[in-house]
Amino acid sequence: MVAETLILDGNRVASSMKEELIERIQRLSDKGIIPCLATILVGDDPASATYVKMKGNACKRLGIQSKRVVFPENTSTSELIAAIQRLNVDPSVHGILLQHPVPQHIDERAAFETISMDKDVDGVTTLGFAQNAFGFADFPSCTPAAILAIMDAYKLPIEGKHAVVIGRSPILGKPVSMMLLNRNATVTICHSKTTDLANIVRLGDIVVAAVGKPRFIQGDWIKPGAIVLDAGYNEGNIGDVDYVACREKASAITPVPAGVGPVTIATLLKHTVEAAEKMAER
Amino acid sequence: MVAETLILDGNRVASSMKEELIERIQRLSDKGIIPCLATILVGDDPASATYVKMKGNACKRLGIQSKRVVFPENTSTSELIAAIQRLNVDPSVHGILLQHPVPQHIDERAAFETISMDKDVDGVTTLGFAQNAFGFADFPSCTPAAILAIMDAYKLPIEGKHAVVIGRSPILGKPVSMMLLNRNATVTICHSKTTDLANIVRLGDIVVAAVGKPRFIQGDWIKPGAIVLDAGYNEGNIGDVDYVACREKASAITPVPAGVGPVTIATLLKHTVEAAEKMAER
Repeated sequence: MVAETLILDGNRVASSMKEELIERIQRLSDKGIIPCLATILVGDDPASATYVKMKGNACKRLGIQSKRVVFPENTSTSELIAAIQRLNVDPSVHGILLQHPVPQHIDERAAFETISMDKDVDGVTTLGFAQNAFGFADFPSCTPAAILAIMDAYKLPIEGKHAVVIGRSPILGKPVSMMLLNRNATVTICHSKTTDLANIVRLGDIVVAAVGKPRFIQGDWIKPGAIVLDAGYNEGNIGDVDYVACREKASAITPVPAGVGPVTIATLLKHTVEAAEKMAER
Repeated sequence: MVAETLILDGNRVASSMKEELIERIQRLSDKGIIPCLATILVGDDPASATYVKMKGNACKRLGIQSKRVVFPENTSTSELIAAIQRLNVDPSVHGILLQHPVPQHIDERAAFETISMDKDVDGVTTLGFAQNAFGFADFPSCTPAAILAIMDAYKLPIEGKHAVVIGRSPILGKPVSMMLLNRNATVTICHSKTTDLANIVRLGDIVVAAVGKPRFIQGDWIKPGAIVLDAGYNEGNIGDVDYVACREKASAITPVPAGVGPVTIATLLKHTVEAAEKMAER
């Protein structure tokens, strides 16, 4: 029998992160600088539209400017790249977010690569990934950084723990694995080709779900007392873990919604403020 | 009782790789191009001097030019960087190898980063690491690529297997983990802060030793029938695994010497030829 499970409150962590930004945004404002995040939305995916709107609203509430760039579904890769290039050289823009995923016919990786390193506040470039993997990125990918921020806010130990990451995407599974590794966890990375997934997940003192499949991680996969971090966000506000069943086994767990999501947005805002500060120093 | 252990013959794999290069080097030669690898050695480390010499000799035997650049122990980071910059723009040089490790006072990462992507045949740049991690590098790090080349030469399956990598360095543990992951292995990365290392290694269908500690991996850590790849090369020609004891348990194992080492050198030569071919196309 595990003691009462700690519910990791993403809203609380996000609030405290945003609290810390207020004074920094004020100092920038005193210099006549308003941090500005450009968000790019391509196509008609309603979930993506919602995310972009949430990010824009979060900016506004904090006094960060949000510049919305919207493209139709049939936009070409080169049109998208040209738009990113314009934002790269626009001195009023400090951060650029290209909402993932873009329509199938667009070369998303090429578009991500176009984002200048100074403005890659979402941490999606190849070089940004590697700097993060080697421990010196300015802007680590937001969702992985949010997962670490939650653990740190609750002072959950990472060093020496066995972390099992389910998912290996370039903006989530791979970078969070490298970040946990750099914090001295032993890290196992699983994916769709993993055999005996249940038994591998059972090894985890820390379990990070980054699969993109609703309620995929089962309660009986969780080692009693493990910490469960759910980076999934599927239709209908459902995470990648079977929350009720996993909560029974875990010592701490993030809910969905109000878990990793709000902290991801707070991380994006923090990176945007940092980008503006760095640009002001130049 | 495991059936007779397959000894993975690095010399054989390397020979066949070099065999395939002969014709390509001839075709370049017909165009008046001699592939050229510049090797940079800084300081007096005898092991490093030996490695550089071995690489130079391997070049010569195959008709690849080897340009040796040697610096004294007290060379500064900026002197080293300036030398790399000269090699970057030298049209007769196709690949640049900076022998690791450089003396402590030099910023090795800054030196590695200076190597132009076109000539990073050893796969040591940050961007090269990320391209490799995302599966589209021109020149993956040589030792990790050699490990995969040995597995492929012996048609050892990777997909769905559990690979345990011991070590997390930027040029070995991290890239080989990403390459195994991209080949659909489930990958666990261990290191000095891993608790219960023996039991973690026992999970491995594939065990990659990249620790840099002589005979560190014990025989009773190896799951019967596992494949053991030893990337270690310690003083006195000793690997990172206790070879005799691990061979008893493994279904296949690389010896040291004559295991990963010669294939690493063959990979470096292959990358140099590829770099020359790419430069010729431009």
